[in-house]
Amino acid sequence: MNDRIEDLIYLDHNATTPVHPEVFDAMAPYLRGDFGNPSSGHVFGARAKAAVEHARDAVAGLLGCAAGEVVFTSGGTESNNLSILGLAAAHPGRRHLVTSVVEHPATRLPCAHLGAGGHEITWLPVDGAGRVDPGGAAAALRDDTLLVTLMLANNETGTLQPVAEISEAAHVVGAVVHTDAAQAVGKIPVRVDALGVDLLSIAGHKLYAPKGVGALYLREGITVAPVLLGGGQERGVRPGTENVSHIVGLGRACEIAAADLASEGRRQHALTDRLWALLAGEIPGLRRNGPPGERLPGTLNVSFPGVRGSAVLARADGLAASTGSACHEDREDPSAVLTAMGLTREEALGAVRLSVGRSTTEAQVETAAAMLIAAWKSRG
Amino acid sequence: MNDRIEDLIYLDHNATTPVHPEVFDAMAPYLRGDFGNPSSGHVFGARAKAAVEHARDAVAGLLGCAAGEVVFTSGGTESNNLSILGLAAAHPGRRHLVTSVVEHPATRLPCAHLGAGGHEITWLPVDGAGRVDPGGAAAALRDDTLLVTLMLANNETGTLQPVAEISEAAHVVGAVVHTDAAQAVGKIPVRVDALGVDLLSIAGHKLYAPKGVGALYLREGITVAPVLLGGGQERGVRPGTENVSHIVGLGRACEIAAADLASEGRRQHALTDRLWALLAGEIPGLRRNGPPGERLPGTLNVSFPGVRGSAVLARADGLAASTGSACHEDREDPSAVLTAMGLTREEALGAVRLSVGRSTTEAQVETAAAMLIAAWKSRG
Repeated sequence: MNDRIEDLIYLDHNATTPVHPEVFDAMAPYLRGDFGNPSSGHVFGARAKAAVEHARDAVAGLLGCAAGEVVFTSGGTESNNLSILGLAAAHPGRRHLVTSVVEHPATRLPCAHLGAGGHEITWLPVDGAGRVDPGGAAAALRDDTLLVTLMLANNETGTLQPVAEISEAAHVVGAVVHTDAAQAVGKIPVRVDALGVDLLSIAGHKLYAPKGVGALYLREGITVAPVLLGGGQERGVRPGTENVSHIVGLGRACEIAAADLASEGRRQHALTDRLWALLAGEIPGLRRNGPPGERLPGTLNVSFPGVRGSAVLARADGLAASTGSACHEDREDPSAVLTAMGLTREEALGAVRLSVGRSTTEAQVETAAAMLIAAWKSRG
Repeated sequence: MNDRIEDLIYLDHNATTPVHPEVFDAMAPYLRGDFGNPSSGHVFGARAKAAVEHARDAVAGLLGCAAGEVVFTSGGTESNNLSILGLAAAHPGRRHLVTSVVEHPATRLPCAHLGAGGHEITWLPVDGAGRVDPGGAAAALRDDTLLVTLMLANNETGTLQPVAEISEAAHVVGAVVHTDAAQAVGKIPVRVDALGVDLLSIAGHKLYAPKGVGALYLREGITVAPVLLGGGQERGVRPGTENVSHIVGLGRACEIAAADLASEGRRQHALTDRLWALLAGEIPGLRRNGPPGERLPGTLNVSFPGVRGSAVLARADGLAASTGSACHEDREDPSAVLTAMGLTREEALGAVRLSVGRSTTEAQVETAAAMLIAAWKSRG
């Protein structure tokens, strides 16, 4: 294994992104002299509180919501739990949830937990591109549907779900709509009103802010019970002293994302198209997982024919990428997302996820393609 | 209000501490090039994982436990919730809990929540020094006592609870013992075996690590159910991508604390004794809240006679301190901790908490005393 990370090409931005240098610069003062607790009444506290509120404005600006609708959390997992478990605790009368079979564990497990406790869960299937059928989703809705929760973009394939279409149908029956937008925010336009969602989860480390911070968009008028109990921070929804430095970083990351969302998206889309063309040109039978068109611009998921993805990556020594989602990394099982899309076990085990980011260059993509092609050609 | 924080004397270390410069230096690489997700299989992931495990060793070293017994969380609030709600969820057969009336909201509210759901809670009173009577605690224990949860050191008064004595009695009836040690760790020796505790909460920002990270000591053999549900991180007890930079910071802070715990404790004890002597010498009727001897070395809580603490602090313009715990800062109510100790409403409203820290000098203490004396003498 090459241990000099400076020499490696990092194509694993869906697992985590580097902290943007401007994000680091924005955070650093709050890890130095400006260390106050936002709850403190003196000037140290007032400055920390102002920084948190500035960040709240920035998150709201990217999502197109009011600052008062943004709740800071410890990450995407907590935001999803608060949305699902917190909503269920606040609304015991409605007992049906709709979700999909390709959700992140931080959605799947809270839903399964409610299912084990007496709620009824509809697990929507996906098509060959990993997409939920809006008609199927609409047909699953009932008078007692509490929540529809669907990820906006899939972490493994970049597939986008038709959340806006499903939101409309869900609201007709009075259901609340949540989307786990951890992989989407900062990569494609995500506006809460265009999506029609009531709850939306963000994970800072997927958009060049650090790990350990997230946010929940909580539409005005929607009530969730806190999952963690304690102080009155974050309007009583999320107690605990605020992670000021990380919250400031998330705010700055949202400002950076907003500044060049369209152009950076086009650039990354071109990079993954180029990567696909280079690989497909040399590897007969290479399979593209997920839709070529409407998808996260920086995500390319391919299955190599006749060899495991892990074996390809082991031979592509100068490249950091992943075979499944980072959260499942310790298992040898094929990706549940890919098998739900209808891939055979062998096809799914042949998969590699290549996710480019802000710092990825065309030269890196070309080198990465050459490495992967050489690795595939040298397969045993 | 003086807005130049460099000119202010900060005597609010119990609300939050500055990040130690060596903690910042340890963290910074993980907010720059070493940005991997510990779950990733490649070298970026391996380096992040190694950093997290190094920090786990450091926390274990300070507490005297095995590294495998340390679970990283988003802070003291989450550690307390995991201890109380997580233990109750994993052990539905035992339905009685013992706690005290002076706990932090992150203990009080989870206990009250369980109480509302059918558990029985014994709320132990405290004496005039804020201390729980060990005999009273032992008398409260029952065959179905699931948990005894008592803070190790009080955030407002610095009072230490007789946790070791109570642990012994609790284990006789088969109860689990948790202590919220957020205010104690890094200030006094805290060793899990000497205390006999099974669960212990740490908050990074109380010991010169940043806000937004904590740890839970979870004794081998004790089972808690996760409160947040998702990925398999932290042995399945606490899901979500690890806050690598903050965890590294917490580890470094524990190493720093371990290096000079006794000498720094003596220094801070002398500083608060000096502060008390200076104030008491000029302010007749000044009341000391909490025990003068066995206490957190850096905490001095006093009630000014005939005037509100908030009015004294408003006049002591160059000083940052607090009238109650930071978490209650928005209310005008007298401190529940002080009223539980038997203070009158007026005495409790006259209170100011002065908490010194690593960077506090004797000259600062003398200046602060002069400011407070002048503020009291100029009362309206």
